[in-house]
Amino acid sequence: MATQSDNYYDIVIVGAGPVGLMLSTCLSRWGYKIKHIDNRPEPTATGRADGIQPRSLDLLRNMGLKSAIMAHKPARVYEVAFWDPPKTGGGIVRTGTWPSCPEFIDARYPFTTLLHQGLIERVFIADLEKNGTEIQRPWTITGFTSDEKADPEYPVTVQLAHVDDSSKTETVKAKYLFGGEGARSFIRDQLKIGITHKDPISYVWGVMDGVVKTDFPDMKMKCTIHSEHGSIMVIPREANMVRLYIQIASSTDADFHPRKAATEAEVQAAAKRILAPYSIEWERVEWYSVYPIGQGISDKYTLDHRVFLGGDACHTHSPKAGQGMNTAFLDALNLAWKIHAVEGGFADRHILETYEPERKDVAETLLAFDNKYAKLFSQRPDAASTAQATASGTHTNPDAQQSAEENEFIKTFKEACEFTSGYGVFYKPNALNYSAAHHPAGTSPTILSPEDQTTKLVPGRLFINSTVTRVVDANVVHLEQEIPLNGSFRLFIFAGSLTSPAQKSALESLAAGLQKPDSFFSRFQRPDIATVSHHERHNPHSKFFTLATVFAAKRPEVEISRDLPALLARYRDNVYADDRWDHRVPDAKAAAHAKMGFDEDKGGVVVVRPDGYVGFVCKLEEGGKTVEALEKYFGAFTTKQ
Amino acid sequence: MATQSDNYYDIVIVGAGPVGLMLSTCLSRWGYKIKHIDNRPEPTATGRADGIQPRSLDLLRNMGLKSAIMAHKPARVYEVAFWDPPKTGGGIVRTGTWPSCPEFIDARYPFTTLLHQGLIERVFIADLEKNGTEIQRPWTITGFTSDEKADPEYPVTVQLAHVDDSSKTETVKAKYLFGGEGARSFIRDQLKIGITHKDPISYVWGVMDGVVKTDFPDMKMKCTIHSEHGSIMVIPREANMVRLYIQIASSTDADFHPRKAATEAEVQAAAKRILAPYSIEWERVEWYSVYPIGQGISDKYTLDHRVFLGGDACHTHSPKAGQGMNTAFLDALNLAWKIHAVEGGFADRHILETYEPERKDVAETLLAFDNKYAKLFSQRPDAASTAQATASGTHTNPDAQQSAEENEFIKTFKEACEFTSGYGVFYKPNALNYSAAHHPAGTSPTILSPEDQTTKLVPGRLFINSTVTRVVDANVVHLEQEIPLNGSFRLFIFAGSLTSPAQKSALESLAAGLQKPDSFFSRFQRPDIATVSHHERHNPHSKFFTLATVFAAKRPEVEISRDLPALLARYRDNVYADDRWDHRVPDAKAAAHAKMGFDEDKGGVVVVRPDGYVGFVCKLEEGGKTVEALEKYFGAFTTKQ
Repeated sequence: MATQSDNYYDIVIVGAGPVGLMLSTCLSRWGYKIKHIDNRPEPTATGRADGIQPRSLDLLRNMGLKSAIMAHKPARVYEVAFWDPPKTGGGIVRTGTWPSCPEFIDARYPFTTLLHQGLIERVFIADLEKNGTEIQRPWTITGFTSDEKADPEYPVTVQLAHVDDSSKTETVKAKYLFGGEGARSFIRDQLKIGITHKDPISYVWGVMDGVVKTDFPDMKMKCTIHSEHGSIMVIPREANMVRLYIQIASSTDADFHPRKAATEAEVQAAAKRILAPYSIEWERVEWYSVYPIGQGISDKYTLDHRVFLGGDACHTHSPKAGQGMNTAFLDALNLAWKIHAVEGGFADRHILETYEPERKDVAETLLAFDNKYAKLFSQRPDAASTAQATASGTHTNPDAQQSAEENEFIKTFKEACEFTSGYGVFYKPNALNYSAAHHPAGTSPTILSPEDQTTKLVPGRLFINSTVTRVVDANVVHLEQEIPLNGSFRLFIFAGSLTSPAQKSALESLAAGLQKPDSFFSRFQRPDIATVSHHERHNPHSKFFTLATVFAAKRPEVEISRDLPALLARYRDNVYADDRWDHRVPDAKAAAHAKMGFDEDKGGVVVVRPDGYVGFVCKLEEGGKTVEALEKYFGAFTTKQ
Repeated sequence: MATQSDNYYDIVIVGAGPVGLMLSTCLSRWGYKIKHIDNRPEPTATGRADGIQPRSLDLLRNMGLKSAIMAHKPARVYEVAFWDPPKTGGGIVRTGTWPSCPEFIDARYPFTTLLHQGLIERVFIADLEKNGTEIQRPWTITGFTSDEKADPEYPVTVQLAHVDDSSKTETVKAKYLFGGEGARSFIRDQLKIGITHKDPISYVWGVMDGVVKTDFPDMKMKCTIHSEHGSIMVIPREANMVRLYIQIASSTDADFHPRKAATEAEVQAAAKRILAPYSIEWERVEWYSVYPIGQGISDKYTLDHRVFLGGDACHTHSPKAGQGMNTAFLDALNLAWKIHAVEGGFADRHILETYEPERKDVAETLLAFDNKYAKLFSQRPDAASTAQATASGTHTNPDAQQSAEENEFIKTFKEACEFTSGYGVFYKPNALNYSAAHHPAGTSPTILSPEDQTTKLVPGRLFINSTVTRVVDANVVHLEQEIPLNGSFRLFIFAGSLTSPAQKSALESLAAGLQKPDSFFSRFQRPDIATVSHHERHNPHSKFFTLATVFAAKRPEVEISRDLPALLARYRDNVYADDRWDHRVPDAKAAAHAKMGFDEDKGGVVVVRPDGYVGFVCKLEEGGKTVEALEKYFGAFTTKQ
């Protein structure tokens, strides 16, 4: 892009909330030239979203941003408490608590992280600055056109203006335009994309952040409180703060008005009535706002696969399940790696067409859950159900036997927990998420699938977490975190037995197949491969592939130069011994193999998409079958160079 | 101190290496006025110590400094590899590997953290700056006197001068002077304190830090390599660096000279010969130094309990066991809290007399281990011993049965691991570390002791790590980390059964006893107690005590306002449920109680010193006995106000 003049960009990103920042951060790291604007003079000062779900924390860690977030000492929500009027009437009593991410979810961080959005934004902004991208503030978009015929390379023209001084304007050319402007998206409006309201009921919510003095015992937990004086949701925050959500009006009310307001004092008085007999005094109010909210989904996320929308511009819903920022992150991540794959010459342009169906489907699920979750919250479970739900929770010896039977309530509870934790988000079969539908039964015996019970990995779902020992330095590591968010597809080779000649031969076949000049791997070799440093850990051969090998063996038994073909040995920092005990598979000799559902001797090969979702799973076989199967998967969407 | 003129300080600290910085950081946080000088213009630029042992990482975490250290992405050493000449001669082969902190040590971080000392220093310096202490550089000490008779409050007079401009001088008055100036201590020399050399043999070592290209497979592990061409020790470092230690000369050599040198090229050539048949090329040498070293201990750490020495000024030894910085940290910590206790009016001045015996004894042990460890390194264990040693290691199902028999080799290995990890460091009985010697048998049935097998906690040893659930927010936490390094004694009340009336009555007795106006607890009440914020978590009543209560119950069962007397309920953020499963006590219902060796119903009370070492353990009983026992412990060293 050095040959292009100053006003040519790879992408123009409008809005520096979570969705815009995630997109900008990924693409900046991968070397793209970005025009990023925001119409606010500063990052979010107060209020807005604040919940980071368990899976999002994994993602931030994979980006190397988690420790900067945690340095702000966010609140951590491990349990949700439910308060209701007692049967005898008057006041409120705790009717139960639930883990927010119960033990049955194999999460590294089984809690929700609560931190002011502005602090989270600043972590991204600091990273952007390291990579040379600055956010231009306060600037806004005033118009745009997209015409691939007129300019196939830079089809998008965007007009920008200073918010406070309309005489300051810019016109820039770009390959892409992204609207991450929130619910009132100018870009969406210009494209005349409508919003479909899923739930005809809309609400007015009051939200108040501050520091309180109270004898209410659960003020540091997430609480849903129903009383005869109304309902409140409590969300703990960093630095002794708390957020209270109060529903002020519903369109089901006789006197409903979407502009219905309530003063700070009115909301505080309501909180006092609802929390009685407990006291609550405000030492400080940091932020207070009243806003109407409805459930809506944008009809399209793009019209031409050049101008895209994401985040709140595409979906609005209640803040109850704490999903806003998390969904925004995943919208951006999904788009980021696909743009990179296309612009890097790796993937056909048509993979951009998977952005809308993958993310819109998740948004539909989110809205359905928003309703279901709300219902779940208001439902008073019987004692037995609560006991059973929490028995799957954090308070028990994980070896304890659990009843196989589950009632409907528990099923809903589990689904809800899985979804809100982020671990339940999945993408349906398509070219990137290989499924049984891609091959008639029996035609591809090399491909492993959960339907055949030959693996527990499901294409379109997250790679399963596992702990292994890195061979080169004996570090105990989280395998799913070992390859950073670098825009590459991750090939995890579970090699099975270290000593079996058949397995050794299979590894050699795999390496030989990958090294053939016309293989999917060789075709996307780095142009600078001859000068790559021997310290390069993840991308010595290609910017689009990182390889890792896991042996079902003890670490001291593995000798990299002896046990791996040279191609795989080159990824010497990504060779692992599957020798850590795991309480989820207590009898396994090789816990990671077992968790993936692989035979401990025979292993298997997993393709993980750059965003951490499984793409494809196949056998590790002697001969050419494994590479053939991988070729079939990658052949469906990579470019034919 | 506001009434004192500008040149009056609580303490003058000379030297801003690990020992000086730790002391300064603690005392700055606790509000003392410090003159801290260093004769270098900048923090350590290259070289010096770099190993943080597992227990030191716990300590840094307890100070809130761990994440800043880890942000530099240090190397982590989990295993040590041993290389020797093969029996057939020629070259080197790996003869075994050992975990550096095996599974039998209940460590949170079972690895050594390797990071350039300058980066570690800067983490402390940033913290100091937050608390208003600056390091005056490059300044040096030129003289001092100490005369308690002439000035009982500020007995020390110190002359300071600018290193490069001797016309710039200062004379300051102080309560204390601390020499953390390293092996060539001016203060030690002035006091005419001698060094006793433990090992008559001295050595010349070469050390080289840099980035290499090599096919040696263990370059990212800690290695001890013996070959017919000499010996090398490999220490991995952050940012692809490695440190090599080479022994250049020993006083046992015929031609020994303590000033014997070797050039960078000579050391590199030696490394090549030793590592053959593996290759090694230096891409970059960051630091290279040759220095003579002998094992020595300062005869005294202080003469008058006003002028103290610590760190390398007190003990020198080989770098092999990676203990230098860790021992320095613990010297400083030991002194810091005692100065605070004395100057805060809490403890009698005589507790300062425990600094030298506690720390000198550890230094003696260190030097003994330095020899023993060296011997262990050079000893080639038989295969069975290695297998058994590593069977206690990280690679096994912790439930696996282990042989009860241990040979001498394994015993030494275990002791060495425990000592070098920092978990084996202990202090002998004295007023602060209560022992059976303090009470004739049968006279104090309230006191629990490891000798009676009524607890596993040993006064003078570290508080045992345990994981519990915080009641107020359901966070899963590490109990030993819950009270920060705040200069307070930590009272952990293991309350046992939540429902037993006897236990409830015992808690009430304890609270009533503590609240008596003449109790050890009430006597050291904060003068500003009436205005303390209700958000104050650890020190609402006294700067010298923090209380925590742990019930052998599940979290949702505990109701703080109902189950605790008001005094203990005030520490609402320090109330815990002992409901987490622990693989070390798999059958326990209350794992933390079980790990401490307490009855799960009856619990016990533990006093932990401000530095994390157990001071005293007693029963939790109905009536006045518990407070009586505590009174006996604290009465021995607190002031009579």
